[in-house]
Order: sequence, then structure tokens, then C-alpha cells
Amino acid sequence: MPERRTITGFSNPTVKFLRSLRDKKHRKREGKFLAEGLRLLTDARLAGVLPEMLVMATGRDDHPLLAELESAVAAAGGEIVEMDEAVLSKVTGKDNPQAVAGVFAEFETSLSSIDRTSAPIWLVAQALRDPGNLGTMLRTGDAVGAGGLILIDDCADPFSVEAVRASMGAIFTQRIGRATWAEFIEWLRADEGQLVAASLREAVDYRKAAYRAPCFLMVGNESQGLPEECELACDLRVTIPMLGRADSLNAAVAGAVLAYEALAVLRQ
Amino acid sequence: MPERRTITGFSNPTVKFLRSLRDKKHRKREGKFLAEGLRLLTDARLAGVLPEMLVMATGRDDHPLLAELESAVAAAGGEIVEMDEAVLSKVTGKDNPQAVAGVFAEFETSLSSIDRTSAPIWLVAQALRDPGNLGTMLRTGDAVGAGGLILIDDCADPFSVEAVRASMGAIFTQRIGRATWAEFIEWLRADEGQLVAASLREAVDYRKAAYRAPCFLMVGNESQGLPEECELACDLRVTIPMLGRADSLNAAVAGAVLAYEALAVLRQ
Repeated sequence: MPERRTITGFSNPTVKFLRSLRDKKHRKREGKFLAEGLRLLTDARLAGVLPEMLVMATGRDDHPLLAELESAVAAAGGEIVEMDEAVLSKVTGKDNPQAVAGVFAEFETSLSSIDRTSAPIWLVAQALRDPGNLGTMLRTGDAVGAGGLILIDDCADPFSVEAVRASMGAIFTQRIGRATWAEFIEWLRADEGQLVAASLREAVDYRKAAYRAPCFLMVGNESQGLPEECELACDLRVTIPMLGRADSLNAAVAGAVLAYEALAVLRQ
Repeated sequence: MPERRTITGFSNPTVKFLRSLRDKKHRKREGKFLAEGLRLLTDARLAGVLPEMLVMATGRDDHPLLAELESAVAAAGGEIVEMDEAVLSKVTGKDNPQAVAGVFAEFETSLSSIDRTSAPIWLVAQALRDPGNLGTMLRTGDAVGAGGLILIDDCADPFSVEAVRASMGAIFTQRIGRATWAEFIEWLRADEGQLVAASLREAVDYRKAAYRAPCFLMVGNESQGLPEECELACDLRVTIPMLGRADSLNAAVAGAVLAYEALAVLRQ
């Protein structure tokens, strides 16, 4: 059995460290993030990503996937820690915590590390504020075979517990880029790539548009939408029917409707 | 100027009543719900729905839409209440509350009150637990010209503040039905209507399916998906491509992808 360290007290430095990872500032300083739950950690393992530290509740149920995970972490030289469920509650901030959590090193998010030719579709979000929307976009990206999600300007943190959870494991399979708008557009135009957004401005029906790979599908901020500058820089502006009273869709929904349409066209 | 009642204390019964509406049990007992923000309340007004009570912060900015709202509520015999921002914070549970909120009577949600021929598309959610997903489905329903959202079995409360907010006003334009699965399927089969769900079971490509109005598009619980019984009862089972590692989409995203596909087919 791999070596395990047992933690009992709430004031243990490891507990404090783990709790601090719920905070964006600390995540950034440490370059680490937290993912909770056996399913998420198994998704990570199957994607070839192991936690640097595996945290397990002492009263957990045995599970073959957990045993596999523990062996893999130990074999990779990771740390394995056990703690009471009460202490784990403090770490996860939930009354009924998942029985297992992991600390991961944050991924490289520079645009220069992204190979745009590796996938036909890329999702792009500008000033997306809701971590749930961000995670949902990662999940959708995984489903449509996108290469990843590029975050423009001041977006929610993709390594927050909420975004990681909403991604349903796609945080481990999708590439993540982070850049300002100026950096992004310079990078995009240095090579081929079609930038597409939903818009009301001289736009074509999203069902009749000529999507081309690599296709970058961009959505904007939840309340403001996309800045004019971003819309105008697009190679293709499309309209999604809005038959009711509202004038926009949820950002993650708009991204998904575009992504599935582009996927259907690009697969033809 | 309409008559306004000013509330100063935190322990005022109206404040307690308003706060209690954040709780499902109290909403159910009172048959009322809370909607916050000038935009949401204006959406309601434009949809012909006025709050029974309009609550405004004393330090609010003047706004022509707020003046119109206040006049309309007063003309309809509604109550108008002013309170300090600090007191309003207690009501809304937010540090920076919207300057205005309204108390609405909950809508009729029996299936017998729904006219299925009034729209080509209806969304159906079974055991949907997340109020944000529920609100997002209402918002999508508005956009695709759906008639409403039918909630099967134990779903999140459509009148919760979170669901109302995520609906972006669609709570006031979409019909809401609530029923058990047995009640729903009996009601559905008593007249025409095609029941459709995403499924892996003997399913056809969702891009090649023969959607027929009135088309009921059903999604399942966030973690469990649809029970076998519900899938088997469908007239049409469709598959949405899942090219990545994950085996499902976010429930609200799946509903939206289906709804936009059905819309495109039904409009042809």
C-alpha cells in the first residue's frame, strides 16, 4: 500500500494550504488548483493528468477507481494524504464533501503554446464572468472535438473549483489560453483561422454560414456582449434566431449552438 | 406621485416577509416569488405581468423605466415600498442589491392549463436540480419560440431567485408546467405531441431526425440523465455527437442544441 500521511487537525498547514486554493489570489501564487470527486480525478487520470497531492477522507468507501488513482499518484511520486471528513469539509467548503480531492499544477495558458491546427474548432470567450459558464464551455468544447477555450481579457478563473466542476473533466482535456484582446488578435492573424461571433451587425444566418477550420467561435460577456471592436474584427458574423422577447442567449448556450452548427458543416 | 410606504427597520414585518421569499417553503406557502432588478421587472411589465408589491431603494437613481414601472404598479392597485439600501441588502441577500425588486404571485403550473397547440416546441426537464440550468432553459425556450417548460418529478423551484434571474425575464413569457412523470405522460398521450430525448438507445442522428410539432424536447437530471422509463416512452430518440472524453452535455446546453435543431426543421 502506498505511504499515506494522516492529518487530524483543522490548523494543520496542509489543510490551510488546501483551503487557500479556493481563493484565486492563492491559486495564482501557488500555481495549483483543486479538483474534487472521484469521477473528476478519474477523468484527469484517463487524460494522463495526475494530482501532485491526493486527499482522501478516512471514512471513505473502497472503490476500485480510487485504488487505481492512489497507485498511479504514488507511482508518479505524488503525495497521499488522509483526513477526517470534518477536516475535508473545511477544505472543500461543503457539508458533504466528496471523499477525495486532488491538488493539480495549473496548466500552461500562453497562446504561443497552442497549436491551432490540432483541432477544427476553438472556443473563445471575452470577459466571461461566470465560472459555471466557463466550465460548461469547456465541457461543450470536449463534446464537439474542439481544441480548447481561449479566454480574452478579464474572464473568470478556469482553475476555480466551480469552473473545474462545471467542466466535468474537460479542464483536463481542453487546452486553455489566456490573453488580452490585442494579444489574441495578433496571434490569430499571424496564421490561418476564421474568427466567428454571433452578432446583429451585417450578419448571416448561422445555419447558412461558411465555417472554415480552424474556426474560432467567440462569445462575449454575460451582460455586455462583445465589444464592437471584437465584432468588427470577425471574419464571419452570424445570427442565431431569437423569436421571443429576449435579445440574447446564455453565453455558454450561444457557444454550444454555434459549435454544433460549425461541427456539422466542418464534418461534411 | 403614487403613494409610497417607507420602511426603515430590519425587523419590519414586510422585510421579514420579503426575506422569507428566498426560501422555497415560504414561497410555496405564500404563493409569491421575488424578482430583482429594473431590467427583469421591465421585462415582466412588457409581458403584461406586474408585481403585487414594488420595492425600491431610497438612494436609487431616477430612471424613466422605473417611473413607468411605478406608475403601472400603482395604477394596478399594487403596493409601493421604499427602504434603505442596507435593508434591501437583507432582502436580496446581496451586498450591492439591485435598486428595485418586486413580489409576484406564482403562476398556475397545472398541465391542464397548458394549450400545447399554442407553440411548436415545448421543453421538458426531468428531475433538473440546478436552478441556473432551469432558468437558462426558460431563456432558451423564449428564444426558440417555445411555449414553455414542463418540469417532471423533483425539479429545482422555477420561482427561486436564481432560476428567475437566469431566465432573464423568460419566467414571465414562458408557461411553466409541473407534474409527476405519470401525470405528464398521461396528459401528453391524451392528444397529439411528439416526445423527443437525447439518448444512446436505438437513436438517430439529431441532425437527421423528423421533428414534428408540437414537439416536446426532454432532458434529464444533471448527474443521472433520464430514467430508462422516460427514454423508452419517447417517440423519437436522437444522438448528439460526443467526440471527446465526456459522455454528456450540460442539461441546459443539450436542451438548447436540440431546440435549435428542431426549430430549424419545423420552420422549413
